[in-house]
Amino acid sequence: MDLTPLWSARANAMKASEIRELLKLTENPEVISFAGGLPNPQSFPVEEVHEATQRVFRDHAQRAFQYSTTEGVSELRESVADYLHASQAMDVHPDDVLITNGSQQGLDLLGRTLLDAGDTVVTSNPTYLGALQALSYYGAKYAGVDSDGDGLLPDALDDTLKGLAARGVRPKFLYAVPTFQNPSGTCIPEARRRRILDIAHEHDLLIVEDDPYGRLRFDGDPVPTLHSLDKGGDRVLYLGTFSKILVPGFRLAWTAGPSELVRKMVVSKQSIDLCTNAFTQFIAADMLQNGIIEKHLPEIIRLYKGKRDVMLGAMDEHFPKEGVHWTRSRGGMFTWAEMPDGVNTVEMLEETVRRNVAYVPGKPFFPDPEQGFNTMRLNFTHASDDNIKVGIERLAGVMVETMERQKALA
Amino acid sequence: MDLTPLWSARANAMKASEIRELLKLTENPEVISFAGGLPNPQSFPVEEVHEATQRVFRDHAQRAFQYSTTEGVSELRESVADYLHASQAMDVHPDDVLITNGSQQGLDLLGRTLLDAGDTVVTSNPTYLGALQALSYYGAKYAGVDSDGDGLLPDALDDTLKGLAARGVRPKFLYAVPTFQNPSGTCIPEARRRRILDIAHEHDLLIVEDDPYGRLRFDGDPVPTLHSLDKGGDRVLYLGTFSKILVPGFRLAWTAGPSELVRKMVVSKQSIDLCTNAFTQFIAADMLQNGIIEKHLPEIIRLYKGKRDVMLGAMDEHFPKEGVHWTRSRGGMFTWAEMPDGVNTVEMLEETVRRNVAYVPGKPFFPDPEQGFNTMRLNFTHASDDNIKVGIERLAGVMVETMERQKALA
Repeated sequence: MDLTPLWSARANAMKASEIRELLKLTENPEVISFAGGLPNPQSFPVEEVHEATQRVFRDHAQRAFQYSTTEGVSELRESVADYLHASQAMDVHPDDVLITNGSQQGLDLLGRTLLDAGDTVVTSNPTYLGALQALSYYGAKYAGVDSDGDGLLPDALDDTLKGLAARGVRPKFLYAVPTFQNPSGTCIPEARRRRILDIAHEHDLLIVEDDPYGRLRFDGDPVPTLHSLDKGGDRVLYLGTFSKILVPGFRLAWTAGPSELVRKMVVSKQSIDLCTNAFTQFIAADMLQNGIIEKHLPEIIRLYKGKRDVMLGAMDEHFPKEGVHWTRSRGGMFTWAEMPDGVNTVEMLEETVRRNVAYVPGKPFFPDPEQGFNTMRLNFTHASDDNIKVGIERLAGVMVETMERQKALA
Repeated sequence: MDLTPLWSARANAMKASEIRELLKLTENPEVISFAGGLPNPQSFPVEEVHEATQRVFRDHAQRAFQYSTTEGVSELRESVADYLHASQAMDVHPDDVLITNGSQQGLDLLGRTLLDAGDTVVTSNPTYLGALQALSYYGAKYAGVDSDGDGLLPDALDDTLKGLAARGVRPKFLYAVPTFQNPSGTCIPEARRRRILDIAHEHDLLIVEDDPYGRLRFDGDPVPTLHSLDKGGDRVLYLGTFSKILVPGFRLAWTAGPSELVRKMVVSKQSIDLCTNAFTQFIAADMLQNGIIEKHLPEIIRLYKGKRDVMLGAMDEHFPKEGVHWTRSRGGMFTWAEMPDGVNTVEMLEETVRRNVAYVPGKPFFPDPEQGFNTMRLNFTHASDDNIKVGIERLAGVMVETMERQKALA
């Protein structure tokens, strides 16, 4: 039958992304990909998960196989609250923790709960693409705030909020990835975090702190989360995940923050999928309770720090010295490069993929469709060290040629 | 901070359901509950799952711990297609199978993909409450079609579709649970299924066949699914689940049908949660491939058939003979009782819970808010045999008293 007349308006507007089509080419095993955001399988604590799974079969099989409550298994909600307190001095009550099917579901629930079509969300330029995708479904408009090597600029945030207020617009929330941001790799320093919180307080602005990478710090001292710096304790909704500190295949994340907001998200989740996988919730709870995740974390950090060093070393060696800048990420999974104005990294990707290397063009990470043409995100956690060296050298070759062509045209 | 001004229109309209509040009382372990829709933990093949899990650790740990594709792990999609063919003569290509986080997510994705606010969905009276909840979020309106002990009435369906057409309304789809329906327990016979398909063909109507209980048949011969009877092969989207034939805690289900529709649902799922739990996908694929689910199914059927017999026996013994009718379900998890007009089972639940028994009032299963006051759904799979007997006797006592009061008032 012809389904065309049946699509919803939003399904009708869906189209295959040009970039996604290009990146399909990277599934070719010849291609060295810096495009994904995948943890390295070497970081997975297979033996430890196996042992925890055995304990779950022994002690919790019947509950682990049954539907759980929509909020999540109580043992896991308590363990997450304990973990946040022990590792990051965050005060969260287990009742205010919602277990989600990955952080992406937290973002979707946030859209359901807070956004009507045309509502404004404040983000940095650039920001996490997956958040833009989740929130745009609900008709979000974006007020983008510029950032520098230390992340979101507080003065620019203040200006944006004043400008919105002058137009009678109250934004629903600020969406931020303050620590080792995806895509830029930047980390907002503590003093700047305090300024952002003060500004949010002045404008009565809700903050959504998405923190998948905070624990993956290679250098320097930890910076407190916005949630822990928020003295009122009810202005920041915090999203955390097991995908980067344990394994992504469990699809386990959490949302913690203002009780009333978490409760509304729970009601929304009921009609979306009833509850999150109970079996892996019990495994994750066991691994938190027994300190296994905390004990394993240094191994992930050692692995990723090494790869970050290999990538930055290769970039230093091969990337053009003039007109190209990149983030020296102190943690997380990404570095971010800016080429001279006029370069279009979406167009450049085609040639790059022909030489069997891939990155993600930075453009889709900007809420403003006129920004980010000259940027790219590079993942350093997944490729082998040798492939990182080879891939960066090949990519640098395409960059040099593109910039020379660009100069010749100018 | 005051979050009240921030809620979306739909979050604002959310309120705690009156029935849900009443059912919270049933968490008291003293209460014998026929209210839930939970599989019996005795039906869980714990040892078999354990063995399959060991094989996954041995053979697939790295992929099982990584993100999967949004469509699902290829081994599982292939196994599901094979399973549907072997068990129910259904022709489904693995590419047209989408693995979802429970069937509830399939229903949510369906709403995203097909519904704009005000669009019409055809359902039977009554129908599955979870579908109404999922679809109502997207602003569905319902055209309810009456049913009898053999399910949806084809003539009434035809009349409804003609009436809609006369008003220029094209419904987006028919939502049906043809086999051992939740809530009524009815199963549509093959001849009636063929009539329904003919009518759907005449009106160019898409059918969504939700089939969680089809394999849980206690008596009589299997009836072909609508999907397998649809000779064109592209009019029926089929939803199946591992929750009732394996374990619900894995949150694994599938949607199979028209390629274009499945592809749109995949794109929607990307922004909702990226992908379904890969670890349990590998476990389920192993158990399908090795025939373990098929081998275990008779044990579930034996357990539930026994409980169905205990419940129907107790109903025969204790329920009032005049004015009360109930389904003699030949499979699934529920029976359904109708009391005389004028009885309100929502009101009656309060007294019933005081006597430590619970059921779900039938009203929320009717899309029309003026129907179903005198109905109730009774689950027979979860309580112990002794508790079924005691609970049905207590419930019958409340029914008799309610009907006597009702008569005295008349």
